[in-house]
Amino acid sequence: MKLVKNALGRLVPVEVNGKKATPYMGVGKFKPDGRKYAPPIRTAADYPADGNKIVSDLATALKNAGLKDGMTISSHHHLRNGDMVANEVFAAAAAMGKKDLMWLPSASFPCHQGMIEHMENGVIHHIEGSMNGPLGAYCSEGKMRGMGVLRSHGGRWQAIQDGDVHIDIAVIAAPTADPFGNATGDQGPAACGLLGFALADSIYADHVIVVTDNLVEFPCIPWQIQGNNVDQVVVLDQIGDASKIVSGTTQITKSPDRLLIAELTAKFCDEAGIVQDGFSFQAGAGGTALSFALFLRDMMRERGIKARFVRGGSTQYLVDMLEEGLTDYILDGQTFDLEGVRSMHENSGHINTSPFTSYNFHGKGNFASMLDAVVLGATEVDVNFNANVVTHSDGKLLHGIGGWMNCLASKCTILPIPSFRDRIPVLVDDVTTLCGPGELIDVIVTERGIAINPQRQDLLDKLRGSSLPIRSIEEIKNEVEEIVGGKPEAPDVGDKVVAAINWVDGTVIDCVREVKS
Amino acid sequence: MKLVKNALGRLVPVEVNGKKATPYMGVGKFKPDGRKYAPPIRTAADYPADGNKIVSDLATALKNAGLKDGMTISSHHHLRNGDMVANEVFAAAAAMGKKDLMWLPSASFPCHQGMIEHMENGVIHHIEGSMNGPLGAYCSEGKMRGMGVLRSHGGRWQAIQDGDVHIDIAVIAAPTADPFGNATGDQGPAACGLLGFALADSIYADHVIVVTDNLVEFPCIPWQIQGNNVDQVVVLDQIGDASKIVSGTTQITKSPDRLLIAELTAKFCDEAGIVQDGFSFQAGAGGTALSFALFLRDMMRERGIKARFVRGGSTQYLVDMLEEGLTDYILDGQTFDLEGVRSMHENSGHINTSPFTSYNFHGKGNFASMLDAVVLGATEVDVNFNANVVTHSDGKLLHGIGGWMNCLASKCTILPIPSFRDRIPVLVDDVTTLCGPGELIDVIVTERGIAINPQRQDLLDKLRGSSLPIRSIEEIKNEVEEIVGGKPEAPDVGDKVVAAINWVDGTVIDCVREVKS
Repeated sequence: MKLVKNALGRLVPVEVNGKKATPYMGVGKFKPDGRKYAPPIRTAADYPADGNKIVSDLATALKNAGLKDGMTISSHHHLRNGDMVANEVFAAAAAMGKKDLMWLPSASFPCHQGMIEHMENGVIHHIEGSMNGPLGAYCSEGKMRGMGVLRSHGGRWQAIQDGDVHIDIAVIAAPTADPFGNATGDQGPAACGLLGFALADSIYADHVIVVTDNLVEFPCIPWQIQGNNVDQVVVLDQIGDASKIVSGTTQITKSPDRLLIAELTAKFCDEAGIVQDGFSFQAGAGGTALSFALFLRDMMRERGIKARFVRGGSTQYLVDMLEEGLTDYILDGQTFDLEGVRSMHENSGHINTSPFTSYNFHGKGNFASMLDAVVLGATEVDVNFNANVVTHSDGKLLHGIGGWMNCLASKCTILPIPSFRDRIPVLVDDVTTLCGPGELIDVIVTERGIAINPQRQDLLDKLRGSSLPIRSIEEIKNEVEEIVGGKPEAPDVGDKVVAAINWVDGTVIDCVREVKS
Repeated sequence: MKLVKNALGRLVPVEVNGKKATPYMGVGKFKPDGRKYAPPIRTAADYPADGNKIVSDLATALKNAGLKDGMTISSHHHLRNGDMVANEVFAAAAAMGKKDLMWLPSASFPCHQGMIEHMENGVIHHIEGSMNGPLGAYCSEGKMRGMGVLRSHGGRWQAIQDGDVHIDIAVIAAPTADPFGNATGDQGPAACGLLGFALADSIYADHVIVVTDNLVEFPCIPWQIQGNNVDQVVVLDQIGDASKIVSGTTQITKSPDRLLIAELTAKFCDEAGIVQDGFSFQAGAGGTALSFALFLRDMMRERGIKARFVRGGSTQYLVDMLEEGLTDYILDGQTFDLEGVRSMHENSGHINTSPFTSYNFHGKGNFASMLDAVVLGATEVDVNFNANVVTHSDGKLLHGIGGWMNCLASKCTILPIPSFRDRIPVLVDDVTTLCGPGELIDVIVTERGIAINPQRQDLLDKLRGSSLPIRSIEEIKNEVEEIVGGKPEAPDVGDKVVAAINWVDGTVIDCVREVKS
């Protein structure tokens, strides 16, 4: 396989799964000159006039859709580890004797472990999409026939929109739907909140199947997915295990180190002048990020500061802020707990977004770059502030990208991370996999100090004389290496490229090698 | 100009404005085999990271958009006769010395009379879109250089989506917008309710300019138009004359004949078994249609019947029905009065739709065919139930198509019409312009009786023995001719084709000739 050095000096393949790939060229440097993917024109004459698109079962729907060997089937991950639909789709395809399919999930979870069997027996050729847990391990071990392609949420929209990846059949699990195919995630026994990760699929796939266990009379309101884009509707007994879809409650961290990191992050935002009336921020649903949001909330309460918008994944904590009047809006991309689902129903300031509005880099701008601050995680950060979010230092592919890459566009990108985990340094000389260019990562907050990217002289100036522990990243790294007894071991990887990591513009920023041990 | 006979025996041009045109082939007979129009891929790298797309004025925006001679500029008509933006756009284009532009409004109004001067001096080559009042007269007189093309609301979406017509620059008047270009019609001094007629323009135009007089901080909620599709934002002092945008109140008819027609229509619906729990209907904002809705409402109240949905144009009468619990939903396409605008804000059952969801024939179905009954107007109906909605018997082009053609897909299409107007029969041997094929028009209700299309044997059976005045259409027509002293005079028209009438699938169903006198 031919590899070339991209603009970050990473060796990347020039061809991925038989298609020409463009090596990463730098932030904003790749200028697309093509046209968006153009789906086939359909006619209402070929669809039931009464709007009833229900067919008896998944196998019939796949047959009607013209499922053939080698096709691509997509799915979304809003049902998370409770998803029952993707497994049934590939079970049906296997029963039909189909081979060499490509699965394009927006993310996969441990509940999808059964896909390994489908890969072993030839039903699935490979997966493009984040692979968590067992599927990541399978890919890491070099067992998948095709190359994994990891894209951010915005990058997945970009790839589908631009025709970089073509969806033959989209199967959209819908907690509620009507016979026309209008569908929503905010109601029903498998309620998950949003269905935004399936929106691109519904618009650009050649054929769209909605699968629900809660059929309602037309019209299904809201129509997060529009029936006018849907070919068939299938009703199942159960599409998801509610207990694994949304958590009843999201939890803040209890670790003293993580609490310290969260507090330092909030204080940094304050001293950097970010926490002002009308500001905006995004923080994930991880324990540290949630704790950060609580420290920020207290600060806002105390000083009477109101945000214009906060971006979710929504949680009870963001909902509390909205209902307390600490922000005008939650711009929500996915719902992490039941309070988020409730708020989406009840609060007019709780707004649904999609990867198109929030993250698509091949649009006319997106929301990510308008955020005053974003707080993200990382598995590794190097001395040039380049960061890794998909592999561990042992080289294993264990995490998806999510919206992480897209969020780096924020005005201030902060990574609150422990300086080491399980005695393995998080701060390194060179990241195992480079997912985020250092020029976009502004601040690292660890329990041993805060490192500001030297490219952000404005932030360095603002924090001059601060009582916060501002240090150089090298200094913190060296301290950690002394504590844990040296640098992390180099991963034991082979030459084989098992996955490509795509940047927000579709270029290849890095790749993942086969893990030997 | 070469003309051929289409499937309805109408002579239609095989070329319209330099493009090959397909003659009408029958209901549902034309099967498209192409792909949707593919807009150019953009990159966020070319748009301001802070989301501020404001430019100083319209001329600058048009210059930035690369306005060139011969380009197509589109606009929407939600500001109706109060629109101030389209005139300013072409004034700016004229000042820039541009020539031969095509204007693609979703409809034009008397306030756009100034476009005649632009056509006279070469700035505008021709208009594709409904031309009401003076522009219709100008076109009728054969003075426009290009051919007018009249499309239904759904047909305009179809044409833009399919690339039948290409928009270089869409200018979207927005009652409220933010600097990113998110825009809504439901707020602001020029509030008009929806912006659905501009949605296709925002998605498919090469360049999109939002023009507002009510700039709000990001995010503008709701975003009926998504800023991610918008290139530039222009702020003007005033985009519309509120008094001409929505009426304070919509009026029911006071004419005894029209009231009779409305009552007969409601009674027909009842006896035909349409008025049942969970049914649906659509009626326009004209006096007769509103009166029909009131008769229906009384019937529903009396019997405790609830509709599943009614389709607007919304008015105070539909809003009353929603708030009284007589329907679960209003599926609204445009807002006709202030009560409609209020309700859109306040009622979770008042739902925004677009020509895509409601009418696009080149989608995977649409809402129009799911309606149990629709009540529409017509200028003429012939003995085969073919109907005209754009010209009068004198041949003059005076009306747009609106959603009329799309609505014919309903399960029961009823035209409540006076049998004559100003002593000119409405029922004729042959319509001046054929806009609706008789096979889709089920019932004509006049003050002299109700005519059921012989193709609807099921309805004839249901109404057998009814006390309603069921008569043949010929019988009513003959009676009218006796009263007014004969058939209407043939229009005094020449050979020149001044406008093409496009069916919902983009084929040419008829054309309009130059009026001589």
